[in-house]
Amino acid sequence: VLKTVSELAQLVSAQVEGDASLQVSGVSSLEAAQPGQLSFYGNRRYKQALTATRASVILVPLEHPSAHPATLLKVANPHLAFARIAQVFSPEQTYVPGVSPRANVDPTARVAASATVMAGATVGALAVVGERAVLYPGVYLGASTAVGADTVLMPNVTVLDRCTIGARCLLHPSVVIGADGFGFALDLTVPEHVKIPQAGTVRVEDDVEIGACSCVDRATTGETVIAHGAKLDNLVQVGHNSTVGPLSILCAQVGLSGSSELGTGVVLAGQVGVGGHLRIGDLAKVAGQSGIMGDVPDGANVMGAPAIPYRDFMRSWALFGRLPELQAQLREMKKRLEQLEHPTKP
Amino acid sequence: VLKTVSELAQLVSAQVEGDASLQVSGVSSLEAAQPGQLSFYGNRRYKQALTATRASVILVPLEHPSAHPATLLKVANPHLAFARIAQVFSPEQTYVPGVSPRANVDPTARVAASATVMAGATVGALAVVGERAVLYPGVYLGASTAVGADTVLMPNVTVLDRCTIGARCLLHPSVVIGADGFGFALDLTVPEHVKIPQAGTVRVEDDVEIGACSCVDRATTGETVIAHGAKLDNLVQVGHNSTVGPLSILCAQVGLSGSSELGTGVVLAGQVGVGGHLRIGDLAKVAGQSGIMGDVPDGANVMGAPAIPYRDFMRSWALFGRLPELQAQLREMKKRLEQLEHPTKP
Amino acid sequence: VLKTVSELAQLVSAQVEGDASLQVSGVSSLEAAQPGQLSFYGNRRYKQALTATRASVILVPLEHPSAHPATLLKVANPHLAFARIAQVFSPEQTYVPGVSPRANVDPTARVAASATVMAGATVGALAVVGERAVLYPGVYLGASTAVGADTVLMPNVTVLDRCTIGARCLLHPSVVIGADGFGFALDLTVPEHVKIPQAGTVRVEDDVEIGACSCVDRATTGETVIAHGAKLDNLVQVGHNSTVGPLSILCAQVGLSGSSELGTGVVLAGQVGVGGHLRIGDLAKVAGQSGIMGDVPDGANVMGAPAIPYRDFMRSWALFGRLPELQAQLREMKKRLEQLEHPTKP
Repeated sequence: VLKTVSELAQLVSAQVEGDASLQVSGVSSLEAAQPGQLSFYGNRRYKQALTATRASVILVPLEHPSAHPATLLKVANPHLAFARIAQVFSPEQTYVPGVSPRANVDPTARVAASATVMAGATVGALAVVGERAVLYPGVYLGASTAVGADTVLMPNVTVLDRCTIGARCLLHPSVVIGADGFGFALDLTVPEHVKIPQAGTVRVEDDVEIGACSCVDRATTGETVIAHGAKLDNLVQVGHNSTVGPLSILCAQVGLSGSSELGTGVVLAGQVGVGGHLRIGDLAKVAGQSGIMGDVPDGANVMGAPAIPYRDFMRSWALFGRLPELQAQLREMKKRLEQLEHPTKP
Repeated sequence: VLKTVSELAQLVSAQVEGDASLQVSGVSSLEAAQPGQLSFYGNRRYKQALTATRASVILVPLEHPSAHPATLLKVANPHLAFARIAQVFSPEQTYVPGVSPRANVDPTARVAASATVMAGATVGALAVVGERAVLYPGVYLGASTAVGADTVLMPNVTVLDRCTIGARCLLHPSVVIGADGFGFALDLTVPEHVKIPQAGTVRVEDDVEIGACSCVDRATTGETVIAHGAKLDNLVQVGHNSTVGPLSILCAQVGLSGSSELGTGVVLAGQVGVGGHLRIGDLAKVAGQSGIMGDVPDGANVMGAPAIPYRDFMRSWALFGRLPELQAQLREMKKRLEQLEHPTKP
Repeated sequence: VLKTVSELAQLVSAQVEGDASLQVSGVSSLEAAQPGQLSFYGNRRYKQALTATRASVILVPLEHPSAHPATLLKVANPHLAFARIAQVFSPEQTYVPGVSPRANVDPTARVAASATVMAGATVGALAVVGERAVLYPGVYLGASTAVGADTVLMPNVTVLDRCTIGARCLLHPSVVIGADGFGFALDLTVPEHVKIPQAGTVRVEDDVEIGACSCVDRATTGETVIAHGAKLDNLVQVGHNSTVGPLSILCAQVGLSGSSELGTGVVLAGQVGVGGHLRIGDLAKVAGQSGIMGDVPDGANVMGAPAIPYRDFMRSWALFGRLPELQAQLREMKKRLEQLEHPTKP
């Protein structure tokens, strides 16, 4: 694909500073870009890379000074504009519709004629596979599951009985949807852990992406929900009866216990753990490895385990490293106090 | 299924307060219950839900006051009674016995006639599959493995050579049993990490449940053991030569290094990490995200990384958040000390 | 296999103290060894096991005293020598070359005649499978992937399009290579997370081992790299555009964000989290559960979240547990100060 700078500028409503007739052949990072490619600059951290780049076209913030050998495209949000332009250069993956004779599709399942079911995929009884949906090898779709239009299940994904996946979702390899929630009651008289049947299900709404080896457990009763537009990274755990709000971001290795409730646009950085039966408010941000043990208000920015406001954590953490020094000061003051109390001592 | 209150009361040895002849149609949470359904109340946190519930029958603790529009079933442990009753309403999953012509079963394997081996499952040489055991699509059973009666291996589970799985176990999708333990010796003269052959195996005893994408590594020599009745949640890592004691509970994303030894009834909350070559005593409880770097005594309750007694951790954590204030106090006292030492200064 | 002590001593350049003509039948730990077996002693922690062992031959450090009923083999590095000798006794796994009629191999793929492709494995268009490489059931190799000689992909491994795996690698079950990196740009006007196409790839070099259920994401543009000789344990996450340096060790459940750069011989203990766009220097060691939020110098030894030098962390952690005591001291000193300032008060 080749696009002119002016075509791309129009796509992202950019002001062009430089040659608008240039042909752009692709996108790349500032460091790796070749002449003819477009890149973006959104963070001062990369100031040096901006100077050194061989990119022919660069997306920059509106307020950026204009002096650069490359053609500049000024936009409100260079990162977002880059995403839109990168999509232009990204070849759409195409699939041959149809069910492989080596797939195992229950005769009661309804598979759209435009869908692709590859060799070694399984579609259970009464399952529904939507228009243009794709099931790679090793995918297991249980009984009475439903997969929406244009959704892609990558190799070895498992979606167990009665779960529903919306439209335009992308489930990466080895994702597991609908395994039993972790619910037991201890009977000390036997003793044994008595299993609480996990009779509920999972609902994944539209435009959700779930990373490789992530797991979303079915509810005890009712539903575990991943709301529309949420994005989950790899190796994430979502416990039974939890709700992940619309447009929330869960980075890799995050874990939600049972019955957690995340609002809209929540961001959990990597390896965050969230206790059960609590709420994280809309647009709250949780720093990496934090542990949430109580409700988090809307818009809060927290860190630590248990989590406290981010600034408080950072201030206290700086002093944590200085605890030996604080202790030494305390000791020294104690001596001086004694000296004052008993001035006769040497 | 419909059951009368008196039938259910008998099952869990409950005192009935209200209409014992009511028909119960199912179970649910207090919030979601419909008329005709049974729920349970075991935690004051849900007092409001108890008042608002539409459930017709509610399991409550023995000491609970009797005033409620619903029929009450008083029991010692409402959560446990709920588990037993929920099982009554949970339809037993049934499987058609037999080996799919699309399964790959080695001719030397012994598969019970009552077992189910679905399309796309693999059973290796000399493997043994017990009565009524179920292998879903994508299951891989290595050579000389053994799977006990009534055990279910969900889709895409891998059990490698010479491992044994007991009876009535449930392995959720993409569980991996018997991958090599992580053992290398550094040879600086090459340099390279020389692999220590992992010649041991894994023994999973009876009545064990293992969550999706959890991994139990084989021992270097000898066995890695998951003892009877233990329950592991999703994305758990059990290193080589570790032992998980009977009835222990490992919540999601817990990681055990090599040669850890867990006693009976240990509870590790989510994301706990356990160092190698140490022991966690019987009935010990470890709070979420804690890091265990030394032995934990029987019955201990610990938190933090490295872990300390739970109460101590919580007390210190409260002060961690107040470190800037403590520092300010220290500074102010220093000034006052100076004033006392040199009273002539202003 | 039976080997004489003198044969084994020669293999690892050991001094023999005792009977060099003994026949050795295998290796084991000090605790589990039977007569006729060889074990090793490298850590004082196991002094008691050394006394009690039934092993006939024991690898010990050069400086070890010679008094022991067993034959001693003195070497510079007993652990390394044990690895070399254990390999002698570990039966080489053999595979029947050929492509199973139940495998799904694209006609444009090139599979070496000496390679093994088992039933239920998939090999995509233009993929290359090297000499003696092995693909277990459930393996998915995408289009234009390449797998080097003598590399083994265990059951249910997924390697997506255009990724390359070197020679002599071992990928444990359910590993996922080349899933999309986690890259989105928020468009608040819709609102939606706009996907940044992940057009790059993954390069795994020679002699790499990757543990079960570990995930290495493809780069946005360019490559995510696991350099030669690196070893990754289970459930590890490597974000897009990261580089894991040669001979680095990543223990279980470690997570690398995007664009992290690890030097040579880095060791990350279990559950470590590494932030994006930073560098961990050669031979640096990071203690379990630490969180890396800034560059780590070569050879550093760090702990904590955010990480600080290991010794500093441990010193401060000891005082963390004593914070209530420090606070009490502060209070007591305040009282004494007041007494000094206002001596008339009682």
